Amino acid sequence: MSRTTASIITIGDELLIGQTIDTNSAWMAQELNALGIWVHRRVAIGDVREDILDTLAKEAGYSDIVLITGGLGPTADDITKPTLCEYFDTKLVQHEPTLQWVLHIFESRGLPILQRNVDQAMVPEACTVIRNEKGTAPGMWFEKEGKVYVSMPGVPYEMKYIMQSYVLPQLALHYKTPAVLHHTLITSGMGESFVAERLTAFEAKLPPHIKLAYLPSFSLLKLRLTAFGEDKLTTAAELSLYFHEMMALLPDITVTDRDIPIAEVLGQLLKEKGKTVGTAESCTGGLIASWITDIPGSSAYFKGSVVTYSNDMKMKLLGVKPATLQAHGAVSEETVKEMLGGALALLETDYAVAVSGIMGPDGGTEEKPVGTVWIAAGSRDKMVTVRFHLRYDRERNTQMAAVYAINELRKLILQ
Amino acid sequence: MSRTTASIITIGDELLIGQTIDTNSAWMAQELNALGIWVHRRVAIGDVREDILDTLAKEAGYSDIVLITGGLGPTADDITKPTLCEYFDTKLVQHEPTLQWVLHIFESRGLPILQRNVDQAMVPEACTVIRNEKGTAPGMWFEKEGKVYVSMPGVPYEMKYIMQSYVLPQLALHYKTPAVLHHTLITSGMGESFVAERLTAFEAKLPPHIKLAYLPSFSLLKLRLTAFGEDKLTTAAELSLYFHEMMALLPDITVTDRDIPIAEVLGQLLKEKGKTVGTAESCTGGLIASWITDIPGSSAYFKGSVVTYSNDMKMKLLGVKPATLQAHGAVSEETVKEMLGGALALLETDYAVAVSGIMGPDGGTEEKPVGTVWIAAGSRDKMVTVRFHLRYDRERNTQMAAVYAINELRKLILQ
Repeated sequence: MSRTTASIITIGDELLIGQTIDTNSAWMAQELNALGIWVHRRVAIGDVREDILDTLAKEAGYSDIVLITGGLGPTADDITKPTLCEYFDTKLVQHEPTLQWVLHIFESRGLPILQRNVDQAMVPEACTVIRNEKGTAPGMWFEKEGKVYVSMPGVPYEMKYIMQSYVLPQLALHYKTPAVLHHTLITSGMGESFVAERLTAFEAKLPPHIKLAYLPSFSLLKLRLTAFGEDKLTTAAELSLYFHEMMALLPDITVTDRDIPIAEVLGQLLKEKGKTVGTAESCTGGLIASWITDIPGSSAYFKGSVVTYSNDMKMKLLGVKPATLQAHGAVSEETVKEMLGGALALLETDYAVAVSGIMGPDGGTEEKPVGTVWIAAGSRDKMVTVRFHLRYDRERNTQMAAVYAINELRKLILQ
Repeated sequence: MSRTTASIITIGDELLIGQTIDTNSAWMAQELNALGIWVHRRVAIGDVREDILDTLAKEAGYSDIVLITGGLGPTADDITKPTLCEYFDTKLVQHEPTLQWVLHIFESRGLPILQRNVDQAMVPEACTVIRNEKGTAPGMWFEKEGKVYVSMPGVPYEMKYIMQSYVLPQLALHYKTPAVLHHTLITSGMGESFVAERLTAFEAKLPPHIKLAYLPSFSLLKLRLTAFGEDKLTTAAELSLYFHEMMALLPDITVTDRDIPIAEVLGQLLKEKGKTVGTAESCTGGLIASWITDIPGSSAYFKGSVVTYSNDMKMKLLGVKPATLQAHGAVSEETVKEMLGGALALLETDYAVAVSGIMGPDGGTEEKPVGTVWIAAGSRDKMVTVRFHLRYDRERNTQMAAVYAINELRKLILQ
């Protein structure tokens, strides 16, 4: 079985100096995998002619398909397109449909057209131009010595449009691809090495074309099985068999058998049971509510949320007692209990979570150091409270607390 | 002037199949830049012996420094460390201090120690072992033919610890590095090509060692000047001169002269003026509150927030009139005005923002298609309302709406 392989090249200094985080490559890899195309190299380089020429040649040596993003905007250094011309031994010509499209965009927005916008319609003569309905820089498809190259803008929604409308369908036609399938189990409550210990015998008998990977993700652990095979249906059946065998070994720690956010796991559970949820957040500042509402359709079970950052708001909105705050402080079991009760009453939901903690970098004391978080999760009938000591930076502490809070509520609902 | 250059290699299939987004490289690049080390290539490869050997050799050909993350956890395939031994012509030996550290961790947590944890203390004999106080896999520093290689775990906070405690200080000692400095201006309200048009003369006279880059970021535009020079102080002075000249050309659209989140710009403004803020969020689901509280010290000006996803909650918490919802719907100028008024009263703040919209994928109508968002921002005395039509997916629409809302409030406060 020979795999169809791809390299992704991103062009632009913003990725090299750390100003931008590359989210394009992850999306592209997922879509390519779904077609059975294996991305085995990703390379980020700057807007430098020699680096672009050298990297194009090297990656074409490694892979069947070379996908390039970036370096094409109206203010890009005039490097990428001329360099592509040099590499493919061609010259820039004006592409009439692209010019009309660019003129149309500017006209419809009532904006004057600039030379640099007109220049977006200049493309290498040797390429097939791919229409970009989301912007002014078109995509470009090249073929050379049996390899396919596609150059696209780096703006995520423009790249996605070009991939979905043209590149992915064309690649599916171009290549008879074997299957590359993934199935991920999410677990909670057991460390990576202990899970691995329990799966030793299972792992040992996996055939060479099925791989198991462990991916810690905040307080959760993802176990991913990847299968390669000639035929998609057969491979899927085989993967499913092994996946269910693995799952049967971990019933006590399984969260979900799909690679979805924990907020979506909670959402599905609430939808199944016809129950609603709300949140009362102090240190997580609305992140839990934001994660819950990230899920399309969450209005079916999410009604609202209060972020009570100050003690005043904890008392006013959630009815936390002044005496409680006085005696135990805002970061205490007593306070999150009252916040939870207040949220259930105010938001009129079946379930709620309440979180109060110290995320850092400042605000810690000897008794309650940075990273101390109290969580309450429950309903009118049943409640659980937990304290965590988080050891990371502000951002990660906040995300960890949000994962813990959602997971505690998930476990309580399942009890 | 010869630049000290680095390549970053990440090992692990999770980056290649798109399951994980690489945030490590951006952080590493920023820290290296601060030392004057230029990251000119980033390469992601899988856990494959041949790929690792080949990529190590190739990147050492390109760069002075090769930083490697990933492939070292307790459940990693036994590939990275043996492959490093092969490349550096050495063998695995037990490192006593690491073994003691691993034993200590498991003992202090009351967990049994497993063979795979003990194995974390096996390291290539040729390396300098770097203590990892955040985990069990140590860092490893190698030198070969004048090049430096460092291998680190891929878990972000472990990698950061190893970089900060050892790698960055050692690299600073190792290399006499020229300066690489960045300064970013954030603008709003004018398209990339029009800003570029205004800066044509400015850009034309920039010396070759100072580069200008345009980075659209949601509805904002970042203009980044990068300067390279032998001497840090001289280079900084020169960069500052050009930066202020650029800024003077764009007074009407300048948001801030630092590369910080828009929520931090708002926060600084509120702190300067001694004013407070709250949010009333429907479609953004708490994201604005979450961004505001991401900023350390935000408790000085942020008191609280309500997420009113249902109409019931809009009426109950914010006092939106049933007649308003009936006549105009939840996504309307009238509703966000009442939400704003309700938020100012409930949260007792000087300023607030209110947002209501349809983020997709479902919920649109002919009159109010997906992407319709109403924003109100203001105080008791002064209010602005704006409607936007966002054209992206749910996630990006939500983030765009949050940026717009914060920016509208920022502009109103400055008026």
